[in-house]
Amino acid sequence: MQDMEFTVEEGKLYMLQCRNGKRTGAAAVKMAVDMVGEKLITKEQALLRVEPEQLDQLLHPALDPKVVKTEKELAKGLNASPGAGSGQVVFTADEAEAWAKDGKKVILVRKETSPEDIAGMVAAQGILTSTGGRTSHAAVVARGMGKPCVSGCDAVKFPNENEVVIGDTTFKKGDNITIDGTTGKVYAGVLPVVPATISGELETFLGWADDVRAKSTRVTASGNKVKGFDVLANAEQNEAPLAFKFGANGIGLCRTEHMFFDPAKLPFFRNMILADSTEERKEALKKILPLQKDDFFGIIKAMDGRAVTIRLLDPPLNEFVPKPGAKAEIEQLARDTGKDVSELTVKINALQEANPMLGHRGVRVAITYPEVYEMQVEAIALATAEAEKKGIEHDVRIMIPNVISVNEFVRVRDQALAVIEKVNQQKGTDLKFQIGTMIEFPRAALTADKIAQEADFFSFGTNDLTQTTLGFSRDDYGKFVDCYTKGNLLEEDPFKQLDPEGPGALMRIAEEKGRSAKSNLHLGICGEHGGDPASIALCYDIGLNYVSCSPFRVPIARLAAAQAVIKANLAEKAEKAPAKRPGRKPAAKKETKASAKKTTAKKAPAKKAGAKKTTKAGAKKTRK
Amino acid sequence: MQDMEFTVEEGKLYMLQCRNGKRTGAAAVKMAVDMVGEKLITKEQALLRVEPEQLDQLLHPALDPKVVKTEKELAKGLNASPGAGSGQVVFTADEAEAWAKDGKKVILVRKETSPEDIAGMVAAQGILTSTGGRTSHAAVVARGMGKPCVSGCDAVKFPNENEVVIGDTTFKKGDNITIDGTTGKVYAGVLPVVPATISGELETFLGWADDVRAKSTRVTASGNKVKGFDVLANAEQNEAPLAFKFGANGIGLCRTEHMFFDPAKLPFFRNMILADSTEERKEALKKILPLQKDDFFGIIKAMDGRAVTIRLLDPPLNEFVPKPGAKAEIEQLARDTGKDVSELTVKINALQEANPMLGHRGVRVAITYPEVYEMQVEAIALATAEAEKKGIEHDVRIMIPNVISVNEFVRVRDQALAVIEKVNQQKGTDLKFQIGTMIEFPRAALTADKIAQEADFFSFGTNDLTQTTLGFSRDDYGKFVDCYTKGNLLEEDPFKQLDPEGPGALMRIAEEKGRSAKSNLHLGICGEHGGDPASIALCYDIGLNYVSCSPFRVPIARLAAAQAVIKANLAEKAEKAPAKRPGRKPAAKKETKASAKKTTAKKAPAKKAGAKKTTKAGAKKTRK
Repeated sequence: MQDMEFTVEEGKLYMLQCRNGKRTGAAAVKMAVDMVGEKLITKEQALLRVEPEQLDQLLHPALDPKVVKTEKELAKGLNASPGAGSGQVVFTADEAEAWAKDGKKVILVRKETSPEDIAGMVAAQGILTSTGGRTSHAAVVARGMGKPCVSGCDAVKFPNENEVVIGDTTFKKGDNITIDGTTGKVYAGVLPVVPATISGELETFLGWADDVRAKSTRVTASGNKVKGFDVLANAEQNEAPLAFKFGANGIGLCRTEHMFFDPAKLPFFRNMILADSTEERKEALKKILPLQKDDFFGIIKAMDGRAVTIRLLDPPLNEFVPKPGAKAEIEQLARDTGKDVSELTVKINALQEANPMLGHRGVRVAITYPEVYEMQVEAIALATAEAEKKGIEHDVRIMIPNVISVNEFVRVRDQALAVIEKVNQQKGTDLKFQIGTMIEFPRAALTADKIAQEADFFSFGTNDLTQTTLGFSRDDYGKFVDCYTKGNLLEEDPFKQLDPEGPGALMRIAEEKGRSAKSNLHLGICGEHGGDPASIALCYDIGLNYVSCSPFRVPIARLAAAQAVIKANLAEKAEKAPAKRPGRKPAAKKETKASAKKTTAKKAPAKKAGAKKTTKAGAKKTRK
Repeated sequence: MQDMEFTVEEGKLYMLQCRNGKRTGAAAVKMAVDMVGEKLITKEQALLRVEPEQLDQLLHPALDPKVVKTEKELAKGLNASPGAGSGQVVFTADEAEAWAKDGKKVILVRKETSPEDIAGMVAAQGILTSTGGRTSHAAVVARGMGKPCVSGCDAVKFPNENEVVIGDTTFKKGDNITIDGTTGKVYAGVLPVVPATISGELETFLGWADDVRAKSTRVTASGNKVKGFDVLANAEQNEAPLAFKFGANGIGLCRTEHMFFDPAKLPFFRNMILADSTEERKEALKKILPLQKDDFFGIIKAMDGRAVTIRLLDPPLNEFVPKPGAKAEIEQLARDTGKDVSELTVKINALQEANPMLGHRGVRVAITYPEVYEMQVEAIALATAEAEKKGIEHDVRIMIPNVISVNEFVRVRDQALAVIEKVNQQKGTDLKFQIGTMIEFPRAALTADKIAQEADFFSFGTNDLTQTTLGFSRDDYGKFVDCYTKGNLLEEDPFKQLDPEGPGALMRIAEEKGRSAKSNLHLGICGEHGGDPASIALCYDIGLNYVSCSPFRVPIARLAAAQAVIKANLAEKAEKAPAKRPGRKPAAKKETKASAKKTTAKKAPAKKAGAKKTTKAGAKKTRK
């Protein structure tokens, strides 16, 4: 589409200027669908004419573009979760909840958020944090909720408890601000917002994308042929309906940790964490079991027969207890648990870690305290048994996080099998579950051949894999990442777009080793990258069976996945076709290379085009 | 050597029992040397008859073995630095210094130590910490000093500032305890210590080891032939003489961060960290420059012509300022720097990181503030120019830590070259420095081919590489590592012994990729593993040119390196020789396999023996 400027002078037409016209996502989709209707372009051409990110505008409210042009922002942070929102500044999750109950619109402004702030985040119109990257708690949760979030905004300072300085302006609690999570900008006052406009054509358009994905095939580094390329969602029970409405075929990551912040479970869970003995810990877990079972039953029901992959407890235990120094909270906890304040203080201090991301979490908790996962597996099995008795279809898979060795996986898997067997005997069922692992530390990728012999599936946890492969903490890298991306030291923010030479190279090694040991090994991604178009193209090239992302990213992922398939097919065709023009490279290939550069993803069968760009320890060799 | 029990009854000799005799390291060395003198065994056989760790007894004081048998320990922590020491309990580095000045012997007992505690650690007989692993600050520094250290001793609790509870016993400041860093045990009171006994034969014995290393050759995964296997030391100026006395050929890692804790430099360095502008930062650095130059000149002089590799600043900047909440220290700092307390508090808080090991450190500091490394490189160049003018031989190499991409390396390398050129013009010299990189994050190993095109050498930082490959924080893994090693989930503590399937696999990839790009690329290791016998064998197998370790580990490393060479040669011979006995495997190979299991290291040319055990994405293929 072209914008043209012209003038007519003395009966003569002068063309003054001509450039690519800007258009909204809705317009792009409508034009693409109409042109297919008029047989001007094919469906595949239509799918390539809309930028996946443009769909975001169709799913989130946006700031009025006219106002944005004239309004000067106060500060700019990371565009952590798209959409725009306005409201009165509040500083705590409790305030957010209370004010929202009084009918006020609020923006939650904090240094960072933690799982205890969830209710306040739900109540707020948006979240603004002074620290944290695109995969900080605030950012991840906000994206999951489809709420605007600006994170890592350095220019936000807290001189005292009731004020915040944003850029050069001081705001008191109750003053209005507007945040734009699509651009990362923060404004004073309430700016006009254009609501989300879901066009009728979108479903038709994405239906074509789904057909392309379903029919796709490719040969991977391991030499195996992989068919189809699925889009699943990272969702819990309450988000599942939205995920399905947006077109997810199932849930690739159902986290269980948020369940423990439920006020009904939190006291028991804290008792479990603070227990002095295995007996005390088991006692506390016994009280959580029926509640967890209900959670899981709710999920299975919501799935309506679709597959759901439930991840066992992942975060460090200290996230569930007050921070050291939070005196009032510790005193409250002492009253709740009947423990001594000084004893609790010692325990809470002992739970702190120098580098919690590399600490006592995930499967490591189950290795030291097997009863934790045993309770979770029992709850899953009991819920599934209940579903079966009630005639509800179920396809539940169990996923173990943070695995680094096959021995670790086998230990925990066998414990799970024993629990499932116990439930089967108890309930007269014959339940079987796929049990798989996340691949999120380099050692897991490097030993994927051994792990694949035991695991039913792999899901790449690319947030952690990026953190450890690059040595970048996602909570801290905000301080220096701009120097890297702007200075061309890294092509892109590695938490936004999967780095093909770092975690991408390890994923390729894991694919090759894993499928060499088990040719039909099911592979997916459930890190944040699963919703990023360039990362999706890389995942397709590596040979993943699916990507799983936040519900609000599902439509974008469906289109991006289809584009990855189409471009790979075009590149393959170009490779096979004889050169028609002078010079060695056919035209289509040139186009593919240009787009490959933009996405930094390499097209699968274009052996020469991308091979040098992406480092692939294993892949390079097998392909020859 | 055999212990035999016998009795003579009615003129008849009865052999009652017979077992391998236990002997001290000194006895083992003496016997080996004597037997060579008597031509009963070859030098190579002699070298295999002493366990490298036995040499530790020759280098450190030990508890009297008779007393240990009867004395019950109070608690057991990690055996973080060998040797035994007794003294009065003190709780701060200042107390340790003051009491030692008064002629008292003290043991410094703390939760953990930090670089500010160095002087107190020097003054103490030993260090006991309640947290931290084998590579915690306390452990690493103590090993460097050759002082006993027990770290991560959970049973040490601090009920108040003047008391410590160890196990069930309470000790006041001034009470006596004894720690055994060789076993990790802590005892009440003063136990008798046997002093280090360096036998005359040791030098002869280790001279044979040096010959074996010097003559060694092997073909690596990259297809290159590597000759020799050197032992260097991780040392600063004051430790260099000891390192050379113990037989180090040079310094493989000279850290520069401790220099900044020098009271003459710390205030300026803090001003640099807390600067509001680049100008202010440069001003502070200008004051440090002449002092750093003197440091480097001292090192170059101490080297006496040997090679020294100087690593530019590595740790996060927050290690150099008071911790948040340390009110008195922050107030003092405010007075020192002329800054406002509240402003300082904000800055110090902003320097804190959620996961400092994955944070703003090493080369990342130089990317955001190039003037820091520029000052260090200028100081190195000026010191070298001064040495040259004074006719002092020099071989100085510059090492950049935490590199993850070739672009990052090139940026900082080019800045360094510009500074060196400036100094050359200024001083009329023509200095040239090898500039290399550490490989300590997986992405560096995965992109080693690109980095090798620019870097003069690689040094593997296996502490960080282990942390990130396994996702184990060395400060936190103490909570769960026992469950892993005792439960056979990991063969060994991965910070003690290099994990061949994790960091070892990445090193192999880096060797293959790196030497494919530059066949004569010099490779070494400067992590703590460089002093561990099994890890040394793995490094030899991978094809490293040298290992570099704490001065006190140098004799052990010399022997372990020679044993690695001898065993690899035996395995190769066995492979080539036709089988003499029934069954397919020759006898010598069997022996090699047994020892391979014990060390978890794989012998280089024994293609079948170890190939399955160690995962090697690249290596496996090239060798075929």
